[in-house]
Order: sequence, then structure tokens, then C-alpha cells
Amino acid sequence: MPRYKIIVAYDGTDFHGWQKQQRACDEDLDEPAIDDESPGTAVPGLRTVQGVLENAVREVVREPVNVLGASRTDAGVHARGQVAAFTTTRDIPVHKLPRAITSRLPDDVQVLHAEIVPDDFDPIRGAIAKGYRYRLAHSCARHRKPLFDRHYVTHTAYRLDPERMNEAARLLLGEHDFASFARISHGRESTIRTIYECKVTATRDTRCYIDVAGNGFLYNMVRIIAGTLVEVGRGAIKPQAMLEILNARDRRAAGPTLPPNGLCLMWIRYAAALPDAGPEARPA
Amino acid sequence: MPRYKIIVAYDGTDFHGWQKQQRACDEDLDEPAIDDESPGTAVPGLRTVQGVLENAVREVVREPVNVLGASRTDAGVHARGQVAAFTTTRDIPVHKLPRAITSRLPDDVQVLHAEIVPDDFDPIRGAIAKGYRYRLAHSCARHRKPLFDRHYVTHTAYRLDPERMNEAARLLLGEHDFASFARISHGRESTIRTIYECKVTATRDTRCYIDVAGNGFLYNMVRIIAGTLVEVGRGAIKPQAMLEILNARDRRAAGPTLPPNGLCLMWIRYAAALPDAGPEARPA
Repeated sequence: MPRYKIIVAYDGTDFHGWQKQQRACDEDLDEPAIDDESPGTAVPGLRTVQGVLENAVREVVREPVNVLGASRTDAGVHARGQVAAFTTTRDIPVHKLPRAITSRLPDDVQVLHAEIVPDDFDPIRGAIAKGYRYRLAHSCARHRKPLFDRHYVTHTAYRLDPERMNEAARLLLGEHDFASFARISHGRESTIRTIYECKVTATRDTRCYIDVAGNGFLYNMVRIIAGTLVEVGRGAIKPQAMLEILNARDRRAAGPTLPPNGLCLMWIRYAAALPDAGPEARPA
Repeated sequence: MPRYKIIVAYDGTDFHGWQKQQRACDEDLDEPAIDDESPGTAVPGLRTVQGVLENAVREVVREPVNVLGASRTDAGVHARGQVAAFTTTRDIPVHKLPRAITSRLPDDVQVLHAEIVPDDFDPIRGAIAKGYRYRLAHSCARHRKPLFDRHYVTHTAYRLDPERMNEAARLLLGEHDFASFARISHGRESTIRTIYECKVTATRDTRCYIDVAGNGFLYNMVRIIAGTLVEVGRGAIKPQAMLEILNARDRRAAGPTLPPNGLCLMWIRYAAALPDAGPEARPA
């Protein structure tokens, strides 16, 4: 029973997020998410990436499959490097898999890559780092909002100072309690995460993007970080205030949650499995 | 009664083209279009750029207006520089107009610029040149089709040779009978047009775009030129065949009509009206 890891890209605009309907008995929506993104309030019958992907994989392998995704991205959030995994009794030549699945997918989802992984490969618990990008258009001219890329770039009417934002962004690097940057804090699971990269890059005219990489993300964390950096960039708060916001461990201390459309899951990294290594060498 | 010229950009994806429903008595669909683009088969009740624009302008000037567009772009065709004009009894500060109209438009249309023009300014007959761009992604890997820009780039599974395409494109420059490159030829209006520019530019990896500028375009002309250049670029026909195709004056001689999504109306040029000049100096 080979297990396949696939890399998936999608335009989240017309999806109600990654996750398809919960199992029927799952009424405990108070249950916390394992890590980052949506805590699981998906509604049956809505179009989800997982749903269309499972249908396409099922057509290829001709048996029911469960496709488990690494990040349960919210409605409107995009992915260039989502990772998912499934196990099937059928032995499919792995190099043919991306094209075979993608040809059965709607045109807003693509499988970019496939490989065989150990039986116990867990895309959620095995992930050691993830990278997100949040794209911003900042212009006082409200009638010059993004047009052709409006689903992928969030517009703010404030002019932003990327240097100021970077000053604040650097203060997030390292291990911190990010309770101030999470929508839901049940107080049951740890809100401590390590941020490896948090960097604002200015591009042509009035555009910039924020790259954030870390060992894991709390629900809405990147969108709240982006919202707080916008507050810094427009001059509403000082870069140094980032430390007070972290210390507050209170969602109300940070800036607003920015809309999902500017957010894109760029990549997920796993510990490299050594060839023929025992299970202890695999990501766990 | 000031007359306003506006420059309009739109994402054509969710529009049934520029033109709103024809006047009720217009049953003569056999009637030829004045120039380029759709000959006028718009259906009442469908969402059109002209329709949403007239609603927004009406809200601003608080009286009924007719917004006349220079090019009746087809469903799915985009514009960065469509030109339209309307006359109103109300005197609106022209610098406020783009923002006032755009704030009342859905997020797939924007008014970029507005200016006051002579009473007899005709956006259709006054145009002396237009520029279109057709965007292509060419890759044998069918599962690597455009994703995030799929509504703006047409995918072909053939690898294209842009140099070969440019060799063919150059043969279209100048004044020719473009009957082979028009969908409908009634034989009643001239199919002679002058092409000022026809150039293929290769961009990153497997992308290229075709810029075509001319004094006017027949219905579907740019999409048929693009389809014929793809035939050249993939090696199905020789660049020199372009001359035979022109000479045939027969639609069947040229390549296929490519889909609308890759096409974008970039700009429209008018003869500059001299300050305080008489009507004879205006574009006519």
C-alpha cells in the first residue's frame, strides 16, 4: 500500500477553504485545531480543495481515498506549496501522478509534484517549517486598487513605510508566545511558536509583500501579523510596540486580521527521510 | 452640457462583453459592426461593462446617461485602456470623476482617468490607433497550465518559437486586406486595415505575449492573428505562409481563433485636439 505525498497549488478564491465537511459525528467544534489555520468549522456541501482533490484522486486510483492536507487554509487563502498525502492499494507510477490527477481537477487546483513516502508520513505532524506570503497594495488613491490581481493582493488605503515595518518584523523572530496573534486561544494548547523569517519586501510602486516562515502557525496568525505590520507601516504604532504586543498575550493588543485574499501558503518543509532509514529517522 | 472622455480598465472574466443589450427594435443582427470586435449580439439582462458603468455614472451625475465605448470587447476580453464617453447636464469637477465613478463600480471595473472633450468627441470614429496584447503560456506539461493568472493568459500545449513567430508577425505590418483574419466578412465594408506593430515578446520560462497595434481591427482579428502565429511558432506552418494567408482573403486560410481570456485592449489613441481649435481640427 504505497503512500504518496503531493504538492498542491490552488487559487483559494472560489473555495470554502481546504477542509471538506467534518465527519458526521464531529459536533465538538470547540475542539482545538492541531495547529494553524481553520479550527474546523467546514460546512457539508460546500466546495473545498480537499473535496475536489479527493474526487480527482479517486478517479485516478479507482478506490476511495482520504487526502490529508498539511494546512487547513481558510476560505480565500491561496497555496503554491500545500502538501497532502494519501495511501492507496494501487501502484501508480509516481511521475505520472501530477498530470493524471490535475487533468481531473478544475482549473483552480493543480498537483505540481508527487513522491512516495513512508507509510507513516504525516503531513501535519511531520512539517518542520512553513512559509507564507502576504501581498499588499498600499495607495491613497482608492480608485487605483488592484484590478487583475485583486484576489491575490489586499488593498490598504494607507501609504506604508516598508523600512519601518521591517524594524517591527525583526522583533518577531525567534521563539515567542504568540497568543496576541491568534484568533482563538483555548488556553489548552501551547501558543509558543518559532518564527524563522519575517520580512517585508517593497516591489514596484505601491506594492509590498510580507514573507513569514516558522515552525508552525496559530489560527489567523499570519493575517494578524500582517495587520499589525500595516499599523506600524502607516505610522499608527511604533515598531518597538511589537514587543509590548507580544508580552500582552492578548489578541486585543495586536492589529486587525487582514482579509484572506492576500495570503498564500508558499511551502512546507519536512525532515528529509534518510534512504532505508528506520521509522525513528522519519519526520514524526 | 460637458462631454467627458474616460479611460476604463476591467477584468472581462465575469462580463458578457462590453456592450449592453441592443435597442429593442434592433433585430437586424446581420447589420455589420462599424469596426472591430463584437457585431452586436448582446442579450438583454446579461452583465456587461457598459451596463455597470452606466449605472455608476448615473449615480454620480443623477440623471440618465449613455456611455459609448470605443471598442465592443467580447465576453472574457480584458481592458487596461478602454475609452468611453458620455454627456451630462451636470458639471462635475473632472479630477474627482474617476474616484466618484469607481467607488460605485464592482471591483472588476475601474475608471482610471477622465477629461473634458469637445461635444462631438466620438470614441469610435475618433480613434486613430488601438493596441492589444495577447498573452500566451506555452508548455508541453499540461498540468503546469497558468493557475493564478489563468483568466488572463491562454495556454497552449505546444512549445513556441518566438523568433519564428516574429518573422511571421513582421509580414503583417503595413496596410493589407485582412479578410482572412476576420470572423465575419459581409463583403459590404472594407476589410483593409493598417497594422503599425505586431511583435512577440518572450518573457520568463514558457510565456510570451503578442502586441498588435493598428488603425482598426476587424471582428476577432487579434485572436485570429494570435492563433495563426501559434501555428507558426509550433512549426505547423512557415513564417512566409503569412503572405499567402493574407492573399487568400479567406478566413479558412488563417489559424484558429484563440480564446478571449488571453486578450487585453491596452490603449486607444485619438488625434490631439488643438486648444480652441474648430471642429475640423478634432478627431472625426
